[in-house]
Amino acid sequence: MSFDDLLNEKIDLLPASDTREAMRYSLLAGGKRIRPRLLYETVKGYGKEEHLADDFACAIEMIHTYSLIHDDLPAMDNDDLRRGKPTCHRQFNEAIAILAGDGLLTYAFETASKSRLDSAVVQKCISILSMAAGAGGMVLGQNLDIEEGEHPVDWNALKKIHHYKTGCLLAAPLMMGAVIAGQDDDTVKRWEQIGYTIGLAFQVQDDILDVELSAEEFGKSNSDERNDKVTSVTLLGIEEAEHQMHVLYGSAADAIRQEKGFDSTALTDLLNRIENRRK
Amino acid sequence: MSFDDLLNEKIDLLPASDTREAMRYSLLAGGKRIRPRLLYETVKGYGKEEHLADDFACAIEMIHTYSLIHDDLPAMDNDDLRRGKPTCHRQFNEAIAILAGDGLLTYAFETASKSRLDSAVVQKCISILSMAAGAGGMVLGQNLDIEEGEHPVDWNALKKIHHYKTGCLLAAPLMMGAVIAGQDDDTVKRWEQIGYTIGLAFQVQDDILDVELSAEEFGKSNSDERNDKVTSVTLLGIEEAEHQMHVLYGSAADAIRQEKGFDSTALTDLLNRIENRRK
Repeated sequence: MSFDDLLNEKIDLLPASDTREAMRYSLLAGGKRIRPRLLYETVKGYGKEEHLADDFACAIEMIHTYSLIHDDLPAMDNDDLRRGKPTCHRQFNEAIAILAGDGLLTYAFETASKSRLDSAVVQKCISILSMAAGAGGMVLGQNLDIEEGEHPVDWNALKKIHHYKTGCLLAAPLMMGAVIAGQDDDTVKRWEQIGYTIGLAFQVQDDILDVELSAEEFGKSNSDERNDKVTSVTLLGIEEAEHQMHVLYGSAADAIRQEKGFDSTALTDLLNRIENRRK
Repeated sequence: MSFDDLLNEKIDLLPASDTREAMRYSLLAGGKRIRPRLLYETVKGYGKEEHLADDFACAIEMIHTYSLIHDDLPAMDNDDLRRGKPTCHRQFNEAIAILAGDGLLTYAFETASKSRLDSAVVQKCISILSMAAGAGGMVLGQNLDIEEGEHPVDWNALKKIHHYKTGCLLAAPLMMGAVIAGQDDDTVKRWEQIGYTIGLAFQVQDDILDVELSAEEFGKSNSDERNDKVTSVTLLGIEEAEHQMHVLYGSAADAIRQEKGFDSTALTDLLNRIENRRK
């Protein structure tokens, strides 16, 4: 079964409603599934069966999708397009989009809580997920991001926004993968740092792609440009931003190769494909 | 430590941000704490120490508060007042209110996941909480509620809305209380049914109070009346609504008294105080 089929099957378990269809619409709108893939490759790198991570892979993609739905709302970034399709509130309406986000966030924890892995592992993964997504993680990042217009930022302040807004939710799958594979707390902490590095690289790359690709090609409506946002490209220039991005991806790959008892081939290959993405 | 102090202490654990202060503002705006009190009295009725339930009591109040913040948004009920104070988006702004709701919902699961109770108990309680709050529970209820204007409802349809919108989150504390007290699945299912009965009684009572009290006295801006909503009072008339409410509270109390190994005094007293509330 493909990952999209798995997500679709989870949504089918809910009672029919407009909210359910809005959740499905955004969840199956063609995301790159980077967070689930990071999780699966971490579990597999430790020689474990990837299906052990299914519930948590679905959960993190649901959280990522909810964050996009709410970020796109008129009161937030006010975007009309996402991945080349109307955003959730444009396709449905604003009330249903708010509920679809709330529903996906809640369903992420329901899905995680239904896992048949050992309860201590489930509890730890839910803790990691909620800390990464919440007001000490991604929600804080979005808060900092929307206030950025009021307090123009330098590169250090922008890195802080990226850390919370993108880094936390990219670190969580690596950390959960290590927990599912039975690794100790120190190892989980190292994966957390690797995730933050990937998160910063990923966000700088997003800024670069935003500039390089037209709204149509990129499938977003370039709200950053429209809103005159400060980005890594406006602060560093495109060449320095590209240099930083490659350095960050390289240092993450190096750290992954140093993990003991971990076959790094597939995960560093995935990282390489992410580094070479064009959208 | 009072329950408000406990909630405040949990919020203090988060990094400073406007979102954190908006979460605190709504969480400490003087709610009746009915869900935490139902949870505590259930745990105590089984002879267990009430502090065992602290993390889950905080979690369910956070979920209840998030639902009020999002329900009050302009795209939803568009309310300006809540408990006699400006609603979250009026006090802060719409973006921060969306994030405060997201933050509280996520923090509920983080708080639950940090519980030191047995992991299997924590996992089961998170499952109960997420099912009650999500797109098969409270979020579905809100979906049905906002669509009610398009499809005017009869009493059975309204009961369905109340079941999801209010009943699920009033059943969850009773169910979690039974789980924390080590009760079996059949017992938890009976508490679920008791919770649904209380939820319907509670919502009918809200409809009655909404009519009886002016906007000022009630501390809400009576959006139901302003929006010409169908309520149990408009469908049944005030006398029949009051009759139904008392029958429902009575039947819940009877069911509670029948639970074996459970000292029902404090919980039925609490129910009695809820039945006699004036706001």
